[in-house]
Amino acid sequence: MKELEERIAKDAKVLPGDIVKVDGFLNHRVDCQLVASFADEFAKHFDASKIDIVVTAEASGIAIGALVAYKLGVPMVFAKKAKSGNLGDELYKANVHSYTYNKDVTLVLSKQWLNSSNHVLIIDDFLANGEAVRGLIELVRQSGATLEGIGIAIEKGFQHGGDKLREEGYDVYSLAIIDEINDLHVKFRD
Amino acid sequence: MKELEERIAKDAKVLPGDIVKVDGFLNHRVDCQLVASFADEFAKHFDASKIDIVVTAEASGIAIGALVAYKLGVPMVFAKKAKSGNLGDELYKANVHSYTYNKDVTLVLSKQWLNSSNHVLIIDDFLANGEAVRGLIELVRQSGATLEGIGIAIEKGFQHGGDKLREEGYDVYSLAIIDEINDLHVKFRD
Repeated sequence: MKELEERIAKDAKVLPGDIVKVDGFLNHRVDCQLVASFADEFAKHFDASKIDIVVTAEASGIAIGALVAYKLGVPMVFAKKAKSGNLGDELYKANVHSYTYNKDVTLVLSKQWLNSSNHVLIIDDFLANGEAVRGLIELVRQSGATLEGIGIAIEKGFQHGGDKLREEGYDVYSLAIIDEINDLHVKFRD
Repeated sequence: MKELEERIAKDAKVLPGDIVKVDGFLNHRVDCQLVASFADEFAKHFDASKIDIVVTAEASGIAIGALVAYKLGVPMVFAKKAKSGNLGDELYKANVHSYTYNKDVTLVLSKQWLNSSNHVLIIDDFLANGEAVRGLIELVRQSGATLEGIGIAIEKGFQHGGDKLREEGYDVYSLAIIDEINDLHVKFRD
């Protein structure tokens, strides 16, 4: 998505350690008009008529998930980050290792709000090694719902989490794929 | 807002301890169409032409904040919940006591994304004793921005946080005010 790539080139801060900071328009201050337009791009790739719910993760997925779901005319449910493993039987649960914070978190989602009749579009802001997305996939798997696809704003292609998921057969569509960071400048995949 | 009151009456679960659980349409699974329509109600009460940013708090404010901001044509910034008090000088900070979780949290917001030129609409899902909203007001005060108003989805009127804020001169507008909970049934303010 040209507009997102241009915005990243203009406003993202690239920090040592291949960190791409987009908190000016994506995950602290949110440019809601730009993010809502992501839905149009996802609708070009995925069959939007099949999708009946968007699944994302707190906190940085919520704004994107909500705006994309609104534009697709469906509800959104977000997995919460739980502190404890002892969470009762009424939740789907998936353990995820966060490399950003170097700790394990448990993603939880109430069984009440996702079931085998649903057709899911997973949405997230970033995909790097793919841990968070794999947690969401696991929640969807536990629910028995059909996974229609995975829509990502920014993929760090050089960490290969997205490519591995595609090799496994998942339909992962990222609006901007960064394949290289050199001298704090980003290079996008064609 | 009649539609929200009807939805609460139909789908909210009232639990002992005056807990109103709306995680089927507001803060776990989100009915994005309903929530986006909140913006039209807020635009009737507040002067939307003055507002240039929505400020809310993670996590349950983000979906509402993003959808209202999108419909008002402005960006949204959400305060994050920090674990530690030692957070550097580049953040606005406000300590908030959460009665729900019985602990103190620090709300933080990057100075980069809110300043004295901004005109702010604060948005949150719930207002009870008013602690969270007061934290957001404090962040706005530190930034020097002009606070144009405070828009709330559900106010627990019987906890009087909203009334105290109104007495202090804040323009607090809640789409549904629950004034009484009797036998696990809610009664709305006229």
